[in-house]
Formats: sequence, structure tokens, C-alpha cells
Amino acid sequence: MNFASDNAAAVAPEIMAAIAAANQGYALAYGNDQATRRVEVLFSEMFEREVAVFLVSTGTAANALALAHVTPPWGAVLCHAQSHITTDECGAPEFFGGGLKLVGLQGEAGKIDAATVSAAIARLSGHRPHQVNAATLSLTQATEAGTIYRPAEISVLADIAHRGGLKVHMDGARFANALVRTNMSPAALTWRAGVDVLSLGATKGGALAAEAVIVFDPALAAMLPERRKRSGHLLSKHRFIAAQFEAFFRDDLWRVLARRANAMADLLAAGLAARGIAPVWPVEANLVFVAITEHRHRRLQDAGATYYVRNHDGMPANVIDGGAMLARLVTSFSTTKSDIDRFVAIAGAS
Amino acid sequence: MNFASDNAAAVAPEIMAAIAAANQGYALAYGNDQATRRVEVLFSEMFEREVAVFLVSTGTAANALALAHVTPPWGAVLCHAQSHITTDECGAPEFFGGGLKLVGLQGEAGKIDAATVSAAIARLSGHRPHQVNAATLSLTQATEAGTIYRPAEISVLADIAHRGGLKVHMDGARFANALVRTNMSPAALTWRAGVDVLSLGATKGGALAAEAVIVFDPALAAMLPERRKRSGHLLSKHRFIAAQFEAFFRDDLWRVLARRANAMADLLAAGLAARGIAPVWPVEANLVFVAITEHRHRRLQDAGATYYVRNHDGMPANVIDGGAMLARLVTSFSTTKSDIDRFVAIAGAS
Amino acid sequence: MNFASDNAAAVAPEIMAAIAAANQGYALAYGNDQATRRVEVLFSEMFEREVAVFLVSTGTAANALALAHVTPPWGAVLCHAQSHITTDECGAPEFFGGGLKLVGLQGEAGKIDAATVSAAIARLSGHRPHQVNAATLSLTQATEAGTIYRPAEISVLADIAHRGGLKVHMDGARFANALVRTNMSPAALTWRAGVDVLSLGATKGGALAAEAVIVFDPALAAMLPERRKRSGHLLSKHRFIAAQFEAFFRDDLWRVLARRANAMADLLAAGLAARGIAPVWPVEANLVFVAITEHRHRRLQDAGATYYVRNHDGMPANVIDGGAMLARLVTSFSTTKSDIDRFVAIAGAS
Amino acid sequence: MNFASDNAAAVAPEIMAAIAAANQGYALAYGNDQATRRVEVLFSEMFEREVAVFLVSTGTAANALALAHVTPPWGAVLCHAQSHITTDECGAPEFFGGGLKLVGLQGEAGKIDAATVSAAIARLSGHRPHQVNAATLSLTQATEAGTIYRPAEISVLADIAHRGGLKVHMDGARFANALVRTNMSPAALTWRAGVDVLSLGATKGGALAAEAVIVFDPALAAMLPERRKRSGHLLSKHRFIAAQFEAFFRDDLWRVLARRANAMADLLAAGLAARGIAPVWPVEANLVFVAITEHRHRRLQDAGATYYVRNHDGMPANVIDGGAMLARLVTSFSTTKSDIDRFVAIAGAS
Repeated sequence: MNFASDNAAAVAPEIMAAIAAANQGYALAYGNDQATRRVEVLFSEMFEREVAVFLVSTGTAANALALAHVTPPWGAVLCHAQSHITTDECGAPEFFGGGLKLVGLQGEAGKIDAATVSAAIARLSGHRPHQVNAATLSLTQATEAGTIYRPAEISVLADIAHRGGLKVHMDGARFANALVRTNMSPAALTWRAGVDVLSLGATKGGALAAEAVIVFDPALAAMLPERRKRSGHLLSKHRFIAAQFEAFFRDDLWRVLARRANAMADLLAAGLAARGIAPVWPVEANLVFVAITEHRHRRLQDAGATYYVRNHDGMPANVIDGGAMLARLVTSFSTTKSDIDRFVAIAGAS
Repeated sequence: MNFASDNAAAVAPEIMAAIAAANQGYALAYGNDQATRRVEVLFSEMFEREVAVFLVSTGTAANALALAHVTPPWGAVLCHAQSHITTDECGAPEFFGGGLKLVGLQGEAGKIDAATVSAAIARLSGHRPHQVNAATLSLTQATEAGTIYRPAEISVLADIAHRGGLKVHMDGARFANALVRTNMSPAALTWRAGVDVLSLGATKGGALAAEAVIVFDPALAAMLPERRKRSGHLLSKHRFIAAQFEAFFRDDLWRVLARRANAMADLLAAGLAARGIAPVWPVEANLVFVAITEHRHRRLQDAGATYYVRNHDGMPANVIDGGAMLARLVTSFSTTKSDIDRFVAIAGAS
Repeated sequence: MNFASDNAAAVAPEIMAAIAAANQGYALAYGNDQATRRVEVLFSEMFEREVAVFLVSTGTAANALALAHVTPPWGAVLCHAQSHITTDECGAPEFFGGGLKLVGLQGEAGKIDAATVSAAIARLSGHRPHQVNAATLSLTQATEAGTIYRPAEISVLADIAHRGGLKVHMDGARFANALVRTNMSPAALTWRAGVDVLSLGATKGGALAAEAVIVFDPALAAMLPERRKRSGHLLSKHRFIAAQFEAFFRDDLWRVLARRANAMADLLAAGLAARGIAPVWPVEANLVFVAITEHRHRRLQDAGATYYVRNHDGMPANVIDGGAMLARLVTSFSTTKSDIDRFVAIAGAS
Repeated sequence: MNFASDNAAAVAPEIMAAIAAANQGYALAYGNDQATRRVEVLFSEMFEREVAVFLVSTGTAANALALAHVTPPWGAVLCHAQSHITTDECGAPEFFGGGLKLVGLQGEAGKIDAATVSAAIARLSGHRPHQVNAATLSLTQATEAGTIYRPAEISVLADIAHRGGLKVHMDGARFANALVRTNMSPAALTWRAGVDVLSLGATKGGALAAEAVIVFDPALAAMLPERRKRSGHLLSKHRFIAAQFEAFFRDDLWRVLARRANAMADLLAAGLAARGIAPVWPVEANLVFVAITEHRHRRLQDAGATYYVRNHDGMPANVIDGGAMLARLVTSFSTTKSDIDRFVAIAGAS
């Protein structure tokens, strides 16, 4: 009953097989190999336009590289106050960005709304050179609360950002989960809606260690190779990270795996709701947040369930009553129905 | 006939098998897994003392983290003028180190001698706060010229460094090659000779992407976890990097593979020397440098040989005559005798 | 009627005279002169203990140097959400601090309370190495709202900070104004109450360009000379900045000037209040904040009054009603009674 | 007999008077005052084109801001191995530039020649993204050896730089000394010869603390205001730095003072040469370098002479014989003939 993180899951067999298959003969190092060439083409096909793509081994690297690339050191990145980039990356964007500033915005269910973005841009524009100025809007898709921005919502936010001179970044560590839930194309969820640069994660979705920075306007990617190299994120045996993405995209594997993870989250949410433990936020990706009593929490832990309890800063007061805890339950492609049934039974017992 | 880089080689089958074997069930992310615990113990055993170890996926990351950790932003790192950290990492040590300065020192055959280090420390000490001050000595083992520092040489340099208040870093991207050539213990080549922090590479030696920062005094490692995380170098599915090192050390695989690479370099050097193309520097690791005419260079390229031609700044004038080129030939565990025979035959033909 | 800033005032005649008087003969550069030696002793006398002191020419430099010195790049500085360091220094602390994070806390009248600090430390401690960790508490004295922390308040906050392993910084750009209002000693308002490092401003108080970083434990100041030099803040003709502080302290000039500025603020506040325009926050230093209608604002501007209108984020909703503006009126040692009378008359006219 | 530095001199009376004269009434802070507007116009007139100018209080700040502005973090600045930016600024360019790399080039008498620059650009171009790439050429005028680049020399070097895609920076801490010696216009010595950005110093030439970054193409100056503010180098009472430059330029004061300093250097050089102590390098600015025996050095010190002894790395072996020391003698506008006569007499005594 492991619901700690989709990072705790193993690697999808198809991806592991691709890594093994790539282990043949010599290949030029540092991305000058054939597998990398192939996967670059693949990314452009996937996103229905020519893109520039940079593979790295962690999501933190992808986010920090992307944000530093589109934000000057004296710029501000507007993001949700609970977003991974500001709470869980130990200041990586600030480090890569030469001391840029992340400005955390409040918003329900992990999402930022248009009024909040507009107000932040207004507040962080014009008082030059005394103030850092709004430079980038970063959206997380799916959000840390397990919710999803629809293309129309992204468009509205991106338009506001672009009118204010900002670039739009999307942290897509769980992009595939959003993709299959909305049943939209990758293009519709990104550049067609105004996203300038995407951190696309494969690791949580089943890869070993494979993340990509995708710059939709290749001209905007100038000098990103230097940024990546200089941060130590250019792998020498690059074919093995390319191979992971090739397998991820082949036969729609990324959607297959994401659908499985999402389905397990739905099952878990439905099971808990049926026992009176309704999810705190809409379950749209592979994350289920529930308020549980400490009594139930202990019982689950005693039974071997693994998951994290989150602080609930900024949550509406009525969501969590005094004694309850906010449990974050993460499913993955490898979550089984039997684990869910067992978890629901224990959690739901009186 | 690929002699471009040991990075162009594939992954040793034993290591690939270990990666696949690690792909079972759940494991806590970010290094909180059992494989990581096991490999930490293994490192301490290998080095005959309790060490702090941090696994990352590139050598540039290992070097930059290590150097930034022991050098303040206003400090200077003394290193060979041709060392990888100053010529090939796009300023990663400067970036990680908040703008520290690398000071390149001249020295024959890739090695720095005691007088040079002493003079550099004298020149970069005391004119405070106007001058950056010598803070770290970085030695490459094996060197970029394919030579090796013996323990006694390291001791002499490390003593000079320590007396001047410097820490000693070793870039061990090809540490195993030095290890088997000298037939010394890992401890003898490092902390017993005065090395404070080692970047130990496994990738060039047969791994997929596995490098380690080893801090010999664990107390000195405080806050290195934050540095690693913040630079994006803490892998989420950490068990797979731990598995690579477990396999690397198991049954002395690292020595077995390094011996094979060194033996191939010896064979290559001997073959070329017999045909009048003597190596420029002593062949002590898996690198052979030879001066070849452009005519021969073209013939080799036409035959499909792959290798890099290096600039020869700082080389004794008599080594390379006017028209010759400096070819760097790198062998690896996967180099075959037949490739060498063929290369030697083509290179040596009149 | 200039109430724009105490920075808009000229230099106090006593300080200008001291600068001119220092212009005799040769003096060693970079702080190796006699005037600097004398003023270092003076600082220690003023603060009743041996201190380390570093003179610079701007308050932003003093704050950024102080914060960067006590906060690691992966640390968080807790400060008021409206504090100068986070709203008006264009990210200087982040730049000097290698990408540290400023965490803005809410609090009434520019002050942070104990519960807020405790909660922030709790939230930003322990989730290592994923989260930046609380490293420093920064208090502004007097605050941006013109209010003052009493020694007992500072002690409570500093104790909480120290128990959590944080250092305490005080931004004392208007320290003298707080000093004379509380009638406490410099020591009582700083290190005796738990402040570890103080940015002490003289510029707003009447100097030309003179600010000091004071480190109360000199051992903590190691390497601050390098930080200052490297940031370009070590003046070559250093005697002239030393001379400003000598004059500032001589015959209690700093208190004399601050009392004058505070008295003018009191007069202004009383005059406005008598006409129904009560200050928004207690007037404790040389700042008066009032809510004025746009109609009155225009009339004042037309009459030549100069002051800034501030945004009122985080202010209690009832303070500023819909149409009103928040005017910040700053007095200085050079403000005249006639200017105040005239301003009050115009503002108060029906 | 103070020949330690032109920084040890006092402030020229005309400049001190201008500072005092600026001390009238209110002026908007941070450069929004009338004196700043006036001086900006003055700079454009001086340089015969519209320029963007940023005043700061130290030469290190001017150099570091200028270099960081035209060099990306992954870029290299080519400069003389003995230049102030690489030997005496404690890594300020690296800090401001996010970890850029200074590459020290050898050259006689403090000057870099065309072949050396060409070779460095060739060596530091193209091996992307592994290598930092040559981005900026920095020339010092007058050089640290007291020599001067003529316009034709600058043009040749700047052309090479521009063809390689580099920008050209000039460290003009002693620009006025070069100006009057060559009898050229400021434009001829800078942008007409290809200089893109100039650090123009007034402090060594007689100001209190006044340096300027001059960007010859104003479009290239975008975001320099943010860089300056964020580094703490935007003075609040900005009128007083503007006043220094106004006085510096008024009635050609800068040339008057520089001529005086140069003339004193000529006198000193001639006097010493007449006694057999010939200058090591041509005396073209206000610096005289001589080789003196330790015996004479002691005698001068005993007589109260102040000057620095420099290391002589990179000097031709024949310049300094075994026992001699390299003395750097700096004159300034305030050096007197009697000091020189006395110094020469003592130095020249048998």
C-alpha cells in the first residue's frame, strides 16, 4: 500500500527494456548520438511543431533550467504558493537564476486564477529599478493538489502574462496525467494555449530518470545548451536518457501508463468517498487528498500504508477541522486494485 | 575503431543487469531506499573509513559540487591548466561556487609539481581582501594526459596545500584506471595521502550514469545534501544509481574493467611505438597521446577510426613538430584487440 | 513641502564640514587610514562591546552584505512582507546571498509578531534537503510603517529565532529614529536584545552616503572583508566615509538630528489628526501614513507637496476605504515647521 | 613622499567645493535629480554621441557591472594576466557575472597584442557547450604597467574582438592620464576605436568617490539600472556623485589634474634615470616602475617614502636581476616637486 509518491514506483518494463536495448556498441557522448537525434524529432512530432528539447535526469533540473532561462536575475516568477518549485526544490530556481525571486500566490485547489495573476503583475511592474519585476508565470500541470488547468484557463492566464511582458512556464512533472484526463493534444495543453516553455516529466510516469525542457520557439533556446552543461546536467552516455523518452512515446505508452495511474486514483477516491471520506479537492490526476483523523492515520500506518501528511497552509478553514490531518495519496502506473481495496477497507472501518 | 572517449562505450553487462534487478516493487525516493543505504556502507568499506557519499549522474556535477563545497566564492582553485574542470565543464565550478576562480597551472604530462603549487599559493595568499585567495588544490587522477600521481607525489602536494590552509580535491573520473595501475588501495591513493574530497567516476569505467562525491571527513559534508538538491542532482528513483555502484564494486568489477581498458591502452601504445609512433607521454591509464601527420590522420579517418585531435597549448615545443597533430586515443573496457590491431596497422603503414 | 523621503534631504552641515576637514594630505586607501581606525573604536564604544564594523555607501549594500553573511544560499530570511529588503532592493539580498529566499510575513503596522515567526520557523524547518530552511530573522527598526520594536519585543522574537537556529538581523536604516524615541541605548536595542548583525544607516539621518554593517560577535565577521570587496563596496578613499560616521556620532549628532525629524513627524501627525486625518499607524519615527482622498491628494500636489502614495497590500480593510489613497509622509532633520503648517493647512481644508 | 597610490591622495579642491555646493535644499533621490540629468548630458557631450551612463562609487563596481553586463555567465573575459580586474578585485567580475571566467593573457608592459588576442579567441571558440566561450575583451587604459594603448592599437584589437563576436570593455580607472598623454579626444580613445563599454574613473584623478559605467550604444544598456540597484550601487543622495563628475569635467579639470600627475611621473622617471635607475617600462601615465636594490628600498622606507613592491610574474627575466625589487611609484595631482626631488636624491645616493 505505497501511496507515498509516484517516484517510489519502479520503472515501467517497456522503458527498462529500451534502456537495455540501447546498450549496443559505441555512441557519441553528450547527445551527439542517433537515439538523441531520433527523440528530438519525436518531440517535434508529439507537439506538432518544431521544438527545442533538452533532456535531463531530474524534474528540479528541468524546472530550474527553464525558469532561469526565461527570467532575468532581477525578475520575479509568479507561481502558486504551494507549488513544487517554491516549496520542494531547495531554492534551485533561485540558484540557477542568479537570485531571481519566486512569488507565491494563493489559489484554491492548487490553481491560480486570473484576478490573482493580474494583481500580482500590477504590483510587480513599473517600480523600476527598485523592485524585482514580474517576468514569468509558472503553472503546474497537474497541480500539487491533483487538479488540472483546462486549455481555456491556461489561455486566459497566458494572455494576461504575455500582455504584461511575462513568459509562461509549465511544470509538467505530471503532464501526462493531465493529458489523458482532458483528452487534449500535447499542443492544445501547451503552446497553443500560450505556454512558452514546458518541463515535461517522464520519471513519475514510469521512466528511470528522464525529464525534458521543451522550448516551443527554438530561437528562445539559444544558450540553453550552455546552461545545461554548466549545471552538470548534460549526461555523457546520453543515449540512455533518449531511449527512455523513445519508449515513453512509443505506442502511446505515456498515455497508457498515465491512464492507469489516474484510474487507480479514481478508484481510491470513489472507495474513500463511499465510506464518508470525500476527497478535499477534485481528483483529476493521480493524487487524492483526504482529511483523516489521527486515529485512522495510525491504523493505516500500522497496517503498512505509506503516504505523506501535508501541512495545510492556505487551505479553506472548513476543509480540515481541528483534529484532522491532510493525507496525500499518490497512485502510479504500478498501483494495484488490491492495494486500493485494502487501503479503503482499513481507512473506512469504523 | 572507436577511440573517441570512454564515454562512447556502452554499459558493462554486469551493471546493466544490476539496474534491471533493482526494478522490483516500491522504494522510497531521494536516497531513502535500502540500496542507497547498502552502497553507503560499501563506500566506507572500500575506503577503509567512514565517509560521506553523494551520488550524482555526471562527473561535472560531482566536480562542481565538491569544489564549491570546499572553496568559498572568494577562493581560488589551483588546478592544471589543461584540467577538465577548467577546460571542459563550461564554468560549472564557477557557477556552483558563486563565482570562485580556477587558476590553471602549467605542468608536464598533465601533472602539477610541488614548486608550481608552492609558488601559486605564495602568489595567492595574503593580499586580502583584494585578491582571491588560494583555497583548494585540485588534482586529476588519472590526468588528462593519461598519467598518474603516485601516493608519495600526492602526499607532497597535499602537505603543501594543507600547510597553506587549502583543501585537496581529486577529480577521479578515471580513478579506477589509476588504482589498478598503481596497485594501491583506494585509501592509499586518497585520504591517506591527504585528499579531502574525491569525485569518483563510474560512468567512464562502465556504468550508465553514476558518479560520487566522497567526503572523507563526514563532518565536512554538512549541507552538501542541500547543495546537491538545489543543483537538481538528487535523483528521485535513487535506487538505480545506487545499484550501479553496487555492481561496480561487486567482485571487484571496477578493477576488472579498468585493467581491461589499461591493457588495451598498453597494447595500442606498444603497437604504435613499434611502428615509430611513440606516445607523447607515459601511458599509465587508458589514454594514449600520439603525434601524427595529417596524412595519417586522414587515412585513419577514412578507415572509420574515431578519436579527437587536441590543441597542444603548453606542450613542450619539441613534442609536436610543425605539421603534426596531437591525437588522443581513449580505450575502454569494451575496446577489442582486433580494433587495436587494425588501428595500428593503418596508422603505421608507410 | 518635500515629504518624499529622508533621502531627498541634503547633508547635515556638521557632516559636510567633517568631509571637508578630512581632505588633508595623504591617507592610506581601502580603510587602512587613521580616521577608519578611530571610527572603529567609536562604534565599539557606542555599542558598549567590541564589534566588527564595515562601512559602505548604501543601505542596500549593508543589508545585502549582512544577510548574505549569515544566511546560506539554501536558507530563508524571514522578514515582514512589506520590508524594504524584499520590496525595494531589486533582489539584492538574493544576489549577494547566492539565491537565498526571502519569506515575507504578514503583520500589523509593519511589525512581525511572535506567533507568526514561530509558525514560519516551524513550517521552514526539517524537510531537508528539499526545502529551504529558516536561517535568519530580519527586523526593520524603525519599520516601513514608522513603528518601533521595543527591546522586550525584540528579545522575544530573537529568542524564538535563536532557539530555531536562526541569526537575527536588524535593518536599521532609521535606527537613530528608534533610538531617540525609545530613549534606550544602542546596545539595549540590539545585541542585548539578541540582534546578531545590524545595518546601521546614517544617510537618511543626515550623512552623504554612509552605512555600516555591524557584527556584534567579531568572530562572526570572518570573510566579510572579502564579501565587501568582491561586491565593489570597499571605498578607496575610505577616510571620507569614516569621517561621516565620526561626525554623526560626535556630540550626539545622530540623536540630535533624529529627534528633530521625529518631532517634525509628531507635529505633522498632530496637525493632520486635528483636521480629521488621523494617522493610519502609530507615529513613532519620522514616517506618517495617512489615508487621503484623491481630491485632497491632487490639491496637495498642485500646491507643490512631494510624497509617495503606497500600495496597501495586507492592510486591514477598514483602514483605507474604497476611494482613499495611502500617503507616506517622511520628515527629516531638515523639515521645517512652516512646511508642515502649510501642508496641514492644505490637506485639512474642506 | 607618498607614492603608494593615487587613491591615497585627497580630493581636488574644485571637486570638494562642488560637493559642498550641491548641498542645497531637497533633491529627488536615486538619480532622479537635476544634477544627474545635467551630468548625463555632459557625458554625451564629452564623448560626442548619446551615451548611457551609470554612476557608482568604486572602480571595482564599475568594472564588475560593465563586464557582467556584456558577458554571459558561460562567457570568458580576455584580459591581461596582471590586470586589476583579475588580480585586485577579489573576484568581483566573477560574482557580478554569475561565475564568468577571466582569462589572463601575457603581454609586455601591461599590454596585450593582437596575436595573443587572436589565439585566445581561437582557443576559446567553438567547443560548445563544453567550454566557456570568449565573450569580452577587456583593455586597461592606462595599463597597470603605466603604458598606454594608442587608438590604432585599440582599433586592431577591437576589430579582432568584434569579428569573433566579442564586446570590448575598457577599464579606464586612469583614463584621463591616457587622454592627456595621447592628446586624443575621449571619443577617439573609445567608441571610435571600437570600445563598447567604458569604466571611467574620477576617484584616482581627484574625486572623492565617483566612477562611471559608460555604454556607448544606449540600447545595450537595457537592464543595467536593475544590475546597479541590485548590487547596492545606486546611491540615494545621488546628486553628490553627479556633482563630482560635473566638477571633474568643468573647465577641463580632469585634463588639468591628469596632466599634473603625468608631469610628476615624468619628472620622477627622469630624475631616477639620471641616477642610473631607469624605468622598467615606458612612463606614459602616472606610474613609474623601477627595479631597486633591497638596500635602496630600505633607505627609502626609513626616510618615510611610501610605495608598493610588486611581484614580477611574467616580467622578462632580464628586467629584474636576482636581488632587485620592483617598486611601483604612483604620482597624483597632489604630488609635489619637492617630494620628487627628495625621493630621487635618496634613491640615487650611492
